Amino acid sequence: MNSPAHSLAPETALSAQEQRYVEAVERVLLDHTTRQRLLLTEVSLDALPLIDAIEDLCRGGKRLRALFAYWGWRCAGGDPEAPEIVRAGAAIELFQAAALIHDDIIDHSDTRRGRPSVHRRFQGAHEAEGWRGSAAGFGEMAGIIAGDLCLSFSEAVFASIGTQPAASGKARRIFDTMRTEVMAGQYLDGLSEAIGGEDPEVALERASTVIRFKSAKYSCEHPLAIGAALAGAAEPLLSQLRGFGLPLGEAFQLRDDVLGVFGEPERTGKPAGDDLREGKRTVLIALTEQRGGPDDAALLDEALGDPELDAAGIERLREVIRATGALTELEGIIDATERQVRAALRRIEADPESKRALEVMASRALHRAS
Amino acid sequence: MNSPAHSLAPETALSAQEQRYVEAVERVLLDHTTRQRLLLTEVSLDALPLIDAIEDLCRGGKRLRALFAYWGWRCAGGDPEAPEIVRAGAAIELFQAAALIHDDIIDHSDTRRGRPSVHRRFQGAHEAEGWRGSAAGFGEMAGIIAGDLCLSFSEAVFASIGTQPAASGKARRIFDTMRTEVMAGQYLDGLSEAIGGEDPEVALERASTVIRFKSAKYSCEHPLAIGAALAGAAEPLLSQLRGFGLPLGEAFQLRDDVLGVFGEPERTGKPAGDDLREGKRTVLIALTEQRGGPDDAALLDEALGDPELDAAGIERLREVIRATGALTELEGIIDATERQVRAALRRIEADPESKRALEVMASRALHRAS
Repeated sequence: MNSPAHSLAPETALSAQEQRYVEAVERVLLDHTTRQRLLLTEVSLDALPLIDAIEDLCRGGKRLRALFAYWGWRCAGGDPEAPEIVRAGAAIELFQAAALIHDDIIDHSDTRRGRPSVHRRFQGAHEAEGWRGSAAGFGEMAGIIAGDLCLSFSEAVFASIGTQPAASGKARRIFDTMRTEVMAGQYLDGLSEAIGGEDPEVALERASTVIRFKSAKYSCEHPLAIGAALAGAAEPLLSQLRGFGLPLGEAFQLRDDVLGVFGEPERTGKPAGDDLREGKRTVLIALTEQRGGPDDAALLDEALGDPELDAAGIERLREVIRATGALTELEGIIDATERQVRAALRRIEADPESKRALEVMASRALHRAS
Repeated sequence: MNSPAHSLAPETALSAQEQRYVEAVERVLLDHTTRQRLLLTEVSLDALPLIDAIEDLCRGGKRLRALFAYWGWRCAGGDPEAPEIVRAGAAIELFQAAALIHDDIIDHSDTRRGRPSVHRRFQGAHEAEGWRGSAAGFGEMAGIIAGDLCLSFSEAVFASIGTQPAASGKARRIFDTMRTEVMAGQYLDGLSEAIGGEDPEVALERASTVIRFKSAKYSCEHPLAIGAALAGAAEPLLSQLRGFGLPLGEAFQLRDDVLGVFGEPERTGKPAGDDLREGKRTVLIALTEQRGGPDDAALLDEALGDPELDAAGIERLREVIRATGALTELEGIIDATERQVRAALRRIEADPESKRALEVMASRALHRAS
């Protein structure tokens, strides 16, 4: 599978060690999908497109979550070349792929990692073959099932880690909690879009909850903790890593929300203002509602989530977000969160190499334009 | 949770021992959802409807799969009161609930186990609250996530079984295979509906594959094997149980297909001829296509999968299925499969009590009108 190294700025390129780890994770992914391909061959060759879609999706991605697991493991003194943390990283990456497949159905997203999203891929096959019934319905059916399959693969790989029962029991509990929290966060995200223009305080509170559970804990905190727990970390180190991972994940996601509105399509790989067209109820939007007047609220209420929103409409919304001072306030929040991240990093009791690596991980997550 | 005992004919009512087992499985289900409810309470009270929906769905069901796991375990000499097989049964029931939630989205089913299906339940909440956007889209979003959550619960409970590593490793491999096969079977089922009126031989072959992997192995063979493997069964016994479970599951599903066309709504809990309206490409339909003339094929092609199909249209299709002799042929296949089941049962080397219980399990699965 392709290495994501080239897409990172030079100062954040993967170290040789990280590169070896990522390649080992990708070998586990490919090994698992290959075994499953063999199993499905005995069922029916017609089912193999499910594996093709999962494999192609798994070829992309920056492996940030797997790398967080790796450095959590290393902070707790785990063997740099051990197979356990490779399998854990692969399980986390498969979980991420499963979440993306279902997210793209829910958000009606056409593309993912620069290619058609999984349900659109199957919809395209239906259209190309001229099959009967709704091509969109077929794509959705196949996407739901491909996501379920990928979720099962994640679980099967996690169950194959095989380490000390106490360590794997603790890591398993974090893995289970992570899944429940991510799914609850996804639901709350959809609920916010449905409820819409509610009380600004409630909306801000809910947007913060979505960020914390759907993104921040999941992208940084839980992978770090899973890796550390697998290596047998005691509670103080786990708390120190969590104290670093949570604000880092929050800053990462808040930055992502800014890019979802103001990012350039060539760098984000998504259409300009995509989050506005989707009607995402982010912290940035909640701050705008809180700070804006009745006219701003009316404009947001009308334009947000309009799938027909054109370039002029997007520019109008951007202008409101800037004019209310919401963007400036959010940049301030991101700065403050980044200061928390640096302070938390100093408190982590681990070897200098691992701590330096966490610092690099933080700049990878934070200083990006896509 | 309610016991399903009352809905069975007297001769197939649960024994006291089975009743205790089913109640223990239901306690594990409720215990797990209660813990998850506490976890979600810390995320947001707004996410609790996900747990409510899963709990309500888990209250229903005949627990046939859990009971097969129990008797597989017993055949292999497992302790009648051991917690391991209770957790395994609960994991299988949660997997089934997850599959039903996503199946109902894919099939656009309004009801399940006599209540609104999970996605319709959330759609109804959206309508009742007058939220913005599409109520159907909201229901689907929530249904996809509730199914994912339920699939994760199934995993978490399976991972908590805790037994001899060798036995649990083997059971885990069967559990993983089962999931992949069921999901592939679901996809092939959808693919058959999309491809439609293809060559009758190919259609019959695919319908048989769907039955085998989506239903037969999953409903009987794999649960039996998971239970037996957990108790440390050696290969001969596993093969004997598989040789019994596969034809039993096939006969069970073929009977279900007959009921999906000819069953009475008061007994099946589904509208009359529901499978015809959904366009299910069952073995019964494939046989009808194979045996019928061009007029029959044209009628099937036109009417099958028409959501507006009325009582007269259903009666016309039933008449074709009868007139071509497809129903008689299928009844013959079911009879022959049942003879295989009885022959396989005689070959199982297990204690008389367990063998007698398998015989009762077989009649529960086969002699039912719903």
